[in-house]
Amino acid sequence: MLDDYRLDEKKKVSLEDFDPEDTAGFASKEEVEESFEKLKEQLQDIQERLFASKTNGVLVLFQGMDCSGKDGVVKKVLSGLNPQGFRAESFKQPTSDETAHDFLWRAHKVTPAKGYLVSFNRSYYEDVLITRVHGLIDKDIAATRLKNIQHFEKMLVENGTVLIKIFLHISPEFQLKKINERMENPEKLWKFDPSDLEERRYWDQYIKAYEAAFKATATKTNPWYVVPANNRWFRDYLVLKIIVSTLNKLKLEYPQVVIDSIPKEG
Amino acid sequence: MLDDYRLDEKKKVSLEDFDPEDTAGFASKEEVEESFEKLKEQLQDIQERLFASKTNGVLVLFQGMDCSGKDGVVKKVLSGLNPQGFRAESFKQPTSDETAHDFLWRAHKVTPAKGYLVSFNRSYYEDVLITRVHGLIDKDIAATRLKNIQHFEKMLVENGTVLIKIFLHISPEFQLKKINERMENPEKLWKFDPSDLEERRYWDQYIKAYEAAFKATATKTNPWYVVPANNRWFRDYLVLKIIVSTLNKLKLEYPQVVIDSIPKEG
Repeated sequence: MLDDYRLDEKKKVSLEDFDPEDTAGFASKEEVEESFEKLKEQLQDIQERLFASKTNGVLVLFQGMDCSGKDGVVKKVLSGLNPQGFRAESFKQPTSDETAHDFLWRAHKVTPAKGYLVSFNRSYYEDVLITRVHGLIDKDIAATRLKNIQHFEKMLVENGTVLIKIFLHISPEFQLKKINERMENPEKLWKFDPSDLEERRYWDQYIKAYEAAFKATATKTNPWYVVPANNRWFRDYLVLKIIVSTLNKLKLEYPQVVIDSIPKEG
Repeated sequence: MLDDYRLDEKKKVSLEDFDPEDTAGFASKEEVEESFEKLKEQLQDIQERLFASKTNGVLVLFQGMDCSGKDGVVKKVLSGLNPQGFRAESFKQPTSDETAHDFLWRAHKVTPAKGYLVSFNRSYYEDVLITRVHGLIDKDIAATRLKNIQHFEKMLVENGTVLIKIFLHISPEFQLKKINERMENPEKLWKFDPSDLEERRYWDQYIKAYEAAFKATATKTNPWYVVPANNRWFRDYLVLKIIVSTLNKLKLEYPQVVIDSIPKEG
């Protein structure tokens, strides 16, 4: 089932081939609820093993349009983890210190150490998305940066990081509905940003920039997952399933205790 | 003249082709003294422009055997710079937090921001040198890391860093003389480390590891310089000349002041 959402070859990628309403045949939240809870328990167990064995770091990276649910998915899927081994990072407008360095600098600093799980809400991909869409960088610089990203991710993985890249895929209609909700609901108003409406005008350019990014950086070892995100229950379920199934492949074990090394009394 | 010391193609590199005693025809320190002072003034001028224009970061990386003079060259060549725009970094035995990340992590964190000059006393190259020589990593991992380094350096340069890589080349006889001096001179004894003598046994393996590193990472845009370092006055002179001539190519200018933007009184 996960293969349907996986991009792992450098072939032409069209997001039109993915339906944001898709729920893989499930009719409602109730149908996945039990499975979701089981997966959450599995993830907690995996995290304990990861923290004990310190064999790998895990980086789960979320990208998606405004209102695609990047905050929500971190809250729903990654809550309940042991905070000692988990950190949620989020990339906003870069500071002047950050723009004074190469675009990978601020992200590399906060990549996971071995034993840790870190989530990225947005990432260095913004430097080939928002900047490209608004004409701050030209096509050549975008292509160079995509190569830089490809090499950077390869380096992370070759040095022990498990990288899980997730694109939360929504439709423009769904986005508009969410923006309206934010404006109308006093508890959600704080999340409303007038520039979100402005950004909607660039929808098609964003899609093109994303497709170029997938084409350049979706590889066999570092695939992208396109997660249909118009239905939030399915989005959460699928993201969790992707994370658990990827980490299960690591077959993490608790380290063997060498009895001889335990100090004796007396 | 600098071309004689420059490695910029991925051809077979043999350090035997470089004489550590070489002084490019100069007979003594006195012959380069005036020129050295002029170059130092030039470097200070360049640094001011660099800091004002903030167009590039500059990273000067020093590698070399024990006693090759990495500390000395930083002191002699880079003293007198404006400390606000300069930082001397030095890489020792990695901490547990550092080894828990990929080997480029700790170096990337301290790369120069635009406008700054940073020197590296040792670097991420240690992760393909000392580790390889002592069998902590095998040939395949060394090859992967060299690729990682090549891509990392390319990324830095593509994103505005000027990278100057310098190998301080001494002979084993010179090293032994220096180790003896350290042992005999109370003011230098603190620099003596018994493991230095131990490491001497690995001289040939180090040379081989260096040659492999040069072969993989000396490129047209990111050359290595092999600086003969048995004569310290020539070493300092040549290093300074390499730095100044590289930075002169940037043609750094002070930023134009836009008069309109100066707030008017009243």
